[in-house]
Amino acid sequence: MDAPLTPTDISKLGWNLLREDLSLPIAVLHEDKLEHNLRWMQSFANAYGAKLAPHGKTTMAPKLFLRQVQAGAWGITLATAHQTRVAYEHGVRRVLMANQLIGRQNLEIVSRLLKDEAFEYFCLVDSAELVERLGHFFKARGQRLNVLLEVGAEDGRTGVRDHQQLCATTASLVNWKSQISLCGVEVFEGVVGDEPSVRQLLERTIEIAHELARENRFDRHPVIVSGAGSAWYDIVAEIFSEADIGEEKEVVLRPGCYLTHDVGPYSTAQQRIVKCCSVARKMGPALEPALQVWAYVQSVPEKQKSIIGFGKRDAAFDSGLPVPALHFRPGSAKPVPAPTSWTLTRLMDQHAFLQIGEGDDVRLGDMIAFDISHPCLTFDKWRYLPVLDSEYQVVDIVQTFF
Amino acid sequence: MDAPLTPTDISKLGWNLLREDLSLPIAVLHEDKLEHNLRWMQSFANAYGAKLAPHGKTTMAPKLFLRQVQAGAWGITLATAHQTRVAYEHGVRRVLMANQLIGRQNLEIVSRLLKDEAFEYFCLVDSAELVERLGHFFKARGQRLNVLLEVGAEDGRTGVRDHQQLCATTASLVNWKSQISLCGVEVFEGVVGDEPSVRQLLERTIEIAHELARENRFDRHPVIVSGAGSAWYDIVAEIFSEADIGEEKEVVLRPGCYLTHDVGPYSTAQQRIVKCCSVARKMGPALEPALQVWAYVQSVPEKQKSIIGFGKRDAAFDSGLPVPALHFRPGSAKPVPAPTSWTLTRLMDQHAFLQIGEGDDVRLGDMIAFDISHPCLTFDKWRYLPVLDSEYQVVDIVQTFF
Repeated sequence: MDAPLTPTDISKLGWNLLREDLSLPIAVLHEDKLEHNLRWMQSFANAYGAKLAPHGKTTMAPKLFLRQVQAGAWGITLATAHQTRVAYEHGVRRVLMANQLIGRQNLEIVSRLLKDEAFEYFCLVDSAELVERLGHFFKARGQRLNVLLEVGAEDGRTGVRDHQQLCATTASLVNWKSQISLCGVEVFEGVVGDEPSVRQLLERTIEIAHELARENRFDRHPVIVSGAGSAWYDIVAEIFSEADIGEEKEVVLRPGCYLTHDVGPYSTAQQRIVKCCSVARKMGPALEPALQVWAYVQSVPEKQKSIIGFGKRDAAFDSGLPVPALHFRPGSAKPVPAPTSWTLTRLMDQHAFLQIGEGDDVRLGDMIAFDISHPCLTFDKWRYLPVLDSEYQVVDIVQTFF
Repeated sequence: MDAPLTPTDISKLGWNLLREDLSLPIAVLHEDKLEHNLRWMQSFANAYGAKLAPHGKTTMAPKLFLRQVQAGAWGITLATAHQTRVAYEHGVRRVLMANQLIGRQNLEIVSRLLKDEAFEYFCLVDSAELVERLGHFFKARGQRLNVLLEVGAEDGRTGVRDHQQLCATTASLVNWKSQISLCGVEVFEGVVGDEPSVRQLLERTIEIAHELARENRFDRHPVIVSGAGSAWYDIVAEIFSEADIGEEKEVVLRPGCYLTHDVGPYSTAQQRIVKCCSVARKMGPALEPALQVWAYVQSVPEKQKSIIGFGKRDAAFDSGLPVPALHFRPGSAKPVPAPTSWTLTRLMDQHAFLQIGEGDDVRLGDMIAFDISHPCLTFDKWRYLPVLDSEYQVVDIVQTFF
């Protein structure tokens, strides 16, 4: 067999998606849209004087992490110790692990990374017991750990729910002051369902930050105040940037899906944001879907049904099925928009059922591009994603490390 | 950072899951159950005088493909040209690609593999146009291609639906006899929903095989008659092995999920099979779930809710959420069965919400093992899966190649 090509080799080959130089099904990134989204979100954060720590779990593509950092990101957010290690190994030097650090090997991983003094790391605490465990572990290694206090919502995910949990956690932090630095507060507002609840949770987070500042509990100045998934980042930016916690603060926003965007829940969220947020509106064209899955028409066994050669193995399906975007017949000049009447009706592991109109000109071997919903669960299906220019030339390869 | 360890190195390290030598969340395979399932299905096929071509798309783990072949499998079934190449590169020399071969690069991949005369490959045709395309392509390369005629169901997936499609396809096969060998018939019965429809589709497949044999259309003797996903393989084995198609036949069964089994749809299917199929019943203990995802209790923020450190990024969720199986507190003697009252109520990308009883002894850092539904969509989340013995020692590492 041929020896494997490196990504750099591949980008020099001049491969073109429309010339069928790639094996389909395949997920691709569109360079112009990626770059647009990258700059858009950094500008958005800048407009609020906030820092950006894009959630890296979405792509797990260190090449994209480094582009985000080069574009101005303060750091990269991640969800696990394993993800943190991957980012570190590829050059990321500031990680906000928006999660509790649990389990012997996971602690060991972080402890090893912390031996590099150039590496800055934060994780979350939401209970006295967790603080105790972290304290004992890092004391035995003579290391300090930076943490953020996580504020949670009733019926939500992690995070302190009430005053009692808050007091127990902060009391434990006082006990372990020699080992653990409380650097700020954190919240994930995406777990609650509507704007009033989101605002309420964010206001409560600010109140807690203010209370802790008043009690002089923070070991870092400015204090970090962090929130924002990809759906409510405008509200977080607004509330957190305007908030007074009684001392200097650093607002850190953590959206992840903006980089590729989608045509599902994040597109819906973006419509609300553009409508409601004057800062977003003033920034010109909004986020654009930069991630597509391309596949062949494999069979047209019924007049109104074609079977497409991709499935649950290739694209997310938990927030809406992929949406037909473009139709291309190899040999023709260029892709045309797919009729809006075309709909995926079923997704199996390796096949999709596309409902078409009777008489629609769909043939075996035609290529169809699908926009996707929920980039996270699309990225984790792929180890290499070609990056295309506007002529569908492969200009780069992005490798993922899940 | 440490240099990466090879799988062989790792298996020699004596790592133990219960000693927290592994970073959780993690998907693991249980060696005893894997071996049991491997032998069970091969014996089942043997009992019917049928060949086994396990569907490799489930695991995409060549180490497991080779174990299946060593245990007696006739070949490996795959779904795409890319998967076929992976199997070939790891030593598999007979592939039934249970799919249509479409697209320039995919044809090129297969054409390259066919240069090795020791490699035997079959793919499916279900239209005259596809036969034409394949004929032209392989004629230009001076190569022959083995195909099976796919029989489909109305409202189903791929496959010829009616007499007209059948005749058009076989007429085209006659035209391209110099390039394309019709080696048998194929059906995927898993696309229809109930046993009467499954039986009807299988009987129709046999009728078509019989008709084609009578017309002397097959280029391979014995004729391949292939069916069976992981839900109806007993019915396929029964009907196909007893069928008379007027000449010698080779029945090829293609289940894939049996190797790890699950506690979802395939467990339900297996209950029916053991109940209805005397051959399966006589074979002793049925298939056992061999694939689990282990994760830590990360927070217990409410009395009846604990947050577990795994999510949609780690386990399939499309055929039922993962099911708590074992509960283990590091330092204790061994895992105990998880209370049947424990239920996952929500799965996010990296978190699961576990409903527990008020007063249940669940603590931060406890390990919980989850059985899963739908192995295919769990395997594709992982690049390395440790294989454990009954004492939870890591005895091997299985690498996937999606």
